Amino acid sequence: MAPLPSYVSGSWHVPTDEGAPLTDAVTGAEIGRISASGVDRAAALEYGRRVGGPVLRELTFHQRAVLLKQLGLHLREHRDELYALSARTGATRADSMIDVDGGIGVVLSYASKAKRELPNDTVLVEGNVEPLSKGGTFVGQHLCTPLHGVAVQINAFNFPVWGPLEKFAPAFLAGVPSLIKPAGQTAYLTARLVELIVESGILPEGTVQFLCGGAGDLLDHLTEQDLVAFTGSASTALKLRTHPVVTGRSVRFNAEADSLNCSILGPDAAPGTPEFDLFVKQLVTEMTVKAGQKCTAIRRALVPAALLDDVADTARQRLARVTVGNPADPDVRMGALAGLEQREEVRRSLKALLDAGRIVFGDLDHVEVVGADAERGAFLSPILLRADDPDRAEPHEVEAFGPVSTLLPYQDAGHAVALAARGRGSLVGSIVTADPDFARRVVVGTAPWHGRLLVLNEEDAKESTGHGSPLPPLVHGGPGRAGGGEEMGGVRGIVHHMQRTAVQAGPSMLTAITGRWTSGAPRAQSGPHPFRKHLEELAVGDTVVAGPRVVTLDDVERFAEFTGDTFYAHMDEDAARANPFFGGRVAHGYLIVSFAAGLFVDPAPGPVLANYGLENLRFLAPVKPGDALTVTLTAKQITPREGADYGEVRWDTDVTNQEGVSVAKYDVLTLVAKRPEE
Amino acid sequence: MAPLPSYVSGSWHVPTDEGAPLTDAVTGAEIGRISASGVDRAAALEYGRRVGGPVLRELTFHQRAVLLKQLGLHLREHRDELYALSARTGATRADSMIDVDGGIGVVLSYASKAKRELPNDTVLVEGNVEPLSKGGTFVGQHLCTPLHGVAVQINAFNFPVWGPLEKFAPAFLAGVPSLIKPAGQTAYLTARLVELIVESGILPEGTVQFLCGGAGDLLDHLTEQDLVAFTGSASTALKLRTHPVVTGRSVRFNAEADSLNCSILGPDAAPGTPEFDLFVKQLVTEMTVKAGQKCTAIRRALVPAALLDDVADTARQRLARVTVGNPADPDVRMGALAGLEQREEVRRSLKALLDAGRIVFGDLDHVEVVGADAERGAFLSPILLRADDPDRAEPHEVEAFGPVSTLLPYQDAGHAVALAARGRGSLVGSIVTADPDFARRVVVGTAPWHGRLLVLNEEDAKESTGHGSPLPPLVHGGPGRAGGGEEMGGVRGIVHHMQRTAVQAGPSMLTAITGRWTSGAPRAQSGPHPFRKHLEELAVGDTVVAGPRVVTLDDVERFAEFTGDTFYAHMDEDAARANPFFGGRVAHGYLIVSFAAGLFVDPAPGPVLANYGLENLRFLAPVKPGDALTVTLTAKQITPREGADYGEVRWDTDVTNQEGVSVAKYDVLTLVAKRPEE
Repeated sequence: MAPLPSYVSGSWHVPTDEGAPLTDAVTGAEIGRISASGVDRAAALEYGRRVGGPVLRELTFHQRAVLLKQLGLHLREHRDELYALSARTGATRADSMIDVDGGIGVVLSYASKAKRELPNDTVLVEGNVEPLSKGGTFVGQHLCTPLHGVAVQINAFNFPVWGPLEKFAPAFLAGVPSLIKPAGQTAYLTARLVELIVESGILPEGTVQFLCGGAGDLLDHLTEQDLVAFTGSASTALKLRTHPVVTGRSVRFNAEADSLNCSILGPDAAPGTPEFDLFVKQLVTEMTVKAGQKCTAIRRALVPAALLDDVADTARQRLARVTVGNPADPDVRMGALAGLEQREEVRRSLKALLDAGRIVFGDLDHVEVVGADAERGAFLSPILLRADDPDRAEPHEVEAFGPVSTLLPYQDAGHAVALAARGRGSLVGSIVTADPDFARRVVVGTAPWHGRLLVLNEEDAKESTGHGSPLPPLVHGGPGRAGGGEEMGGVRGIVHHMQRTAVQAGPSMLTAITGRWTSGAPRAQSGPHPFRKHLEELAVGDTVVAGPRVVTLDDVERFAEFTGDTFYAHMDEDAARANPFFGGRVAHGYLIVSFAAGLFVDPAPGPVLANYGLENLRFLAPVKPGDALTVTLTAKQITPREGADYGEVRWDTDVTNQEGVSVAKYDVLTLVAKRPEE
Repeated sequence: MAPLPSYVSGSWHVPTDEGAPLTDAVTGAEIGRISASGVDRAAALEYGRRVGGPVLRELTFHQRAVLLKQLGLHLREHRDELYALSARTGATRADSMIDVDGGIGVVLSYASKAKRELPNDTVLVEGNVEPLSKGGTFVGQHLCTPLHGVAVQINAFNFPVWGPLEKFAPAFLAGVPSLIKPAGQTAYLTARLVELIVESGILPEGTVQFLCGGAGDLLDHLTEQDLVAFTGSASTALKLRTHPVVTGRSVRFNAEADSLNCSILGPDAAPGTPEFDLFVKQLVTEMTVKAGQKCTAIRRALVPAALLDDVADTARQRLARVTVGNPADPDVRMGALAGLEQREEVRRSLKALLDAGRIVFGDLDHVEVVGADAERGAFLSPILLRADDPDRAEPHEVEAFGPVSTLLPYQDAGHAVALAARGRGSLVGSIVTADPDFARRVVVGTAPWHGRLLVLNEEDAKESTGHGSPLPPLVHGGPGRAGGGEEMGGVRGIVHHMQRTAVQAGPSMLTAITGRWTSGAPRAQSGPHPFRKHLEELAVGDTVVAGPRVVTLDDVERFAEFTGDTFYAHMDEDAARANPFFGGRVAHGYLIVSFAAGLFVDPAPGPVLANYGLENLRFLAPVKPGDALTVTLTAKQITPREGADYGEVRWDTDVTNQEGVSVAKYDVLTLVAKRPEE
């Protein structure tokens, strides 16, 4: 059998040696070989930087999102193929859905999030303009630009589809090419995934490469502009993190290591409550999904001491109903571990755990298996332990990366928080309770040790995705033992691949650099009303100034009567004078913005299609009867929408009184048509 | 002379040995001794965690900000004392202002930023609620909580006041106690600063400790919850970064290392332009301020080849006018280096630089000095080099940490960007140009290698704080050689000391945890109108539902006539029907929000003092004549203001039509009075 090829420097590379065998987790049969011998890793990195990076940086975030969406839909069409290979990793159909559909889901979710939350531009302006001087001629703003390197993604064996995709999607959106390195055991599945990606032709060449084998001298060739994202064991994370090139060149390094995650049952959740059942059900699910081979699985189940026996009994009954065996069999609930080596490692860890606990359910050496050979396949019984002394070190330090959890009793909320912290940093914890006080106390208390916390109860149980599932809009990664990193988390995961630079300049220069009109920059008032311009004709800085219009006392009373808003500050001079902010009757804020619209709107049909919203409105000074309002409306940001005949235009709006003092400032959001094609 | 004491574990600790001498930079005389022998570093860390952390975490962000402001004002009263000690580090009055006033300025700036941008709460909710399910019963949000460790702050010798304060302020605001370690050479100044802080009694005990001497075994005792912030050389950064406890426990580590920052003159800036003069003036300033001992100083001056001779000539003339000498003399423009060792190091680096360049101005061995002894004091002439081959390695790799810069010619914008990148990561760069295209191209091109970029020209020159000055609202730190870290940057610098945790829950549970009302959580509609409640009486979730009110065609026409907003979509059925979003005449968005206010407002004087703004307004569905509007206003976030008799209340506002479809959603911002004291 020829080893799996790598895809580097623009072509598929067949290894120059025979490689090492990869085996089917269920049958033990060889299903492929792996080697990356002969792959020029330095050249691959340079190819990514030279070919992939520049073409990607030419695209806007929205253009990248369009490609990412196409890719997700393409992969979805091929998921049956991926399922078939996934079964050979020991995964049941349900496990495969988490990996395959989950991975495709991340791609699609990121594509739509980028379209919604990022500009249709090649750079990202972050946060507000920071005033840096009294006179307003010196301002600052943060600009995020893609790093000019390659995102080296070193994946774990347990999620051969989801893992690479959740790392690739944010890198691609950021404008940074990826070099994907799979874990050996399940590399054949990632290899097919990459093949599907490459064959689709959807992504620009050089934006995805695939190193199917050992890292070799890969890290030696990293530069300050490259990144490394790693998922796997803490020991490998440490090795990579301390690589002299990584440390010496401050290479951005992100680790996501498996951790001793806990699930905490609230004292309110006695047998008979929905939360008691939810807790036990989730515990059993987390033990058996992916045969417990999840960085996020529950390793420590913290239970009020008084409820420990009940939880043990109920969990034992549920675990007894779990069918283990060939994942191809639809009755099978738990498949095999990824390989025989993994099983040996779990057994070794279990022996250490048994120093501090005893078995509630399961057997280290025997398991009844359906449709497969229990010894040739990497099968293991789910094993639930119970450690009656929760202060022993082992349950908090020894991780058995398989279908293994330990029940631990706790005394009160403070004790539960302290025990949770004994994990020294976790990816996730869950609190199963209907008591909001307990939930708040335990969440705030354990948050410093967790990247994610799930509060589970009847309210969210039906729709909850569960303890074990990281989700693209939320950060994934935890402090300390969990690696100290962050992945995903929506736009955060994209920005991770970019350099944040504070840009200081005068307002007109900042406008030129960011492409957004900055207060203090010149306004263009000549030419037609900006509402008469199509999206392509509009320029940032295009302005209409309208007014003045005097606001009379009659206007205020008429508006009050018309709208029903007879708040005393508008209606009663004496009462308004007693108000600490007004010192007399004032016009309604809504009257000010309504009159402003009356001044700046150009009524006839034209390119401006709709005002779809308004942001950051602040009323800055009272408007008194007799004051005259002028409005200045300036095009601030222009965002063409990909694949639509319109785009969004944000207008800076400044309403001033007869003294030139701003009485209200806000952004008006409009949809503006593109020029019709001839 | 007794060595300077450390302040640890609640008291001043006098070292158990004689320590090493510290010398006056100007006279060479001994002015103190330094040692931290006998200091129990493990105990100090534990004291910070056990005593400082818990008391700080009890305070809200605003309460911490109040203390920080008091501290800043207290230090300001004592700045003359600090100036006097600062002069002994070789600093001129102007240099001391940067260090002392600059440091106090960071403290005050952070105090006011925290009050403006953070909630008056002990935890920080970051970003929006993320919907995680179709039915809305499962949602997520990011919560930032203070780490439960100590922020170990290892400072550089060049800013003995600013350095410690810019690290301390964000840590304190985050709720994390600090352990300040000064650099040896100028520790006597930091020691006095800390003494002033401790003696003031303003800060809770345990929140500031001071290790005045070597780090010793300090890092061996770090945990996953501690942080290290380092400013100094790249080689020390590497040593700390790779400490086995730092790497093994994923200790959050931030490095800010000096780098080979560049300043780029635009091709437009020929002699005679304001930018030409600004460039040369800034170059000379950056060379001589703090005798060039700034991580942010300009080491590489990139000049269009055609302008190189002009720049060299003009810079030489300016440098010749710089008076070097005793900083106590008001005529002196440049003082001494921090010590004789520093001078030796600069001379060594200069020799390496001379392999690639020649001297335009200055002398390695001689300098004319006013009011001091040129050899006993650590004086050095400013030295400007010129490297006619800009592609040589030395100017991009060898840093002389003193009054030293190198002029380098470049060919075009692309070449300038490539040369800038040769620094392999810098804290800051500046571009001096009046050409927006050149500025945009060079900013976007060099941003991936920079933490900060200044565009300098006539527009911002008068108010610009210059190339060398990091500012609290902007990030400070750069990629690669600059250490790969980020300090300050406003709220970012605070959040750096916190753990970001994704919290997943049902809406009512999320409300209980974050203290903010989350859409989907129960609303409390019984009792009095919420506008009749004082701040303390209001609870998140308090709601008023009002309506329905039918919007008639007459209302729309009346509103149009009244406001002047006769946009066709409101006035002309045929034209409105042709609009892709409306399908017929619709009510004005401003009419909807005005009617909504008319419905929810309670008119009589009461605790609600003013509506000061409105946020995130989106018009979600057209309102047609005949539609009936109902508004639901729910207290979402309540922020008491420290030291004022009112606070802010944010109201979730949902306007629905007769079918229950939301037509507009937004947040109404109000000021609400606290209950008057009896």
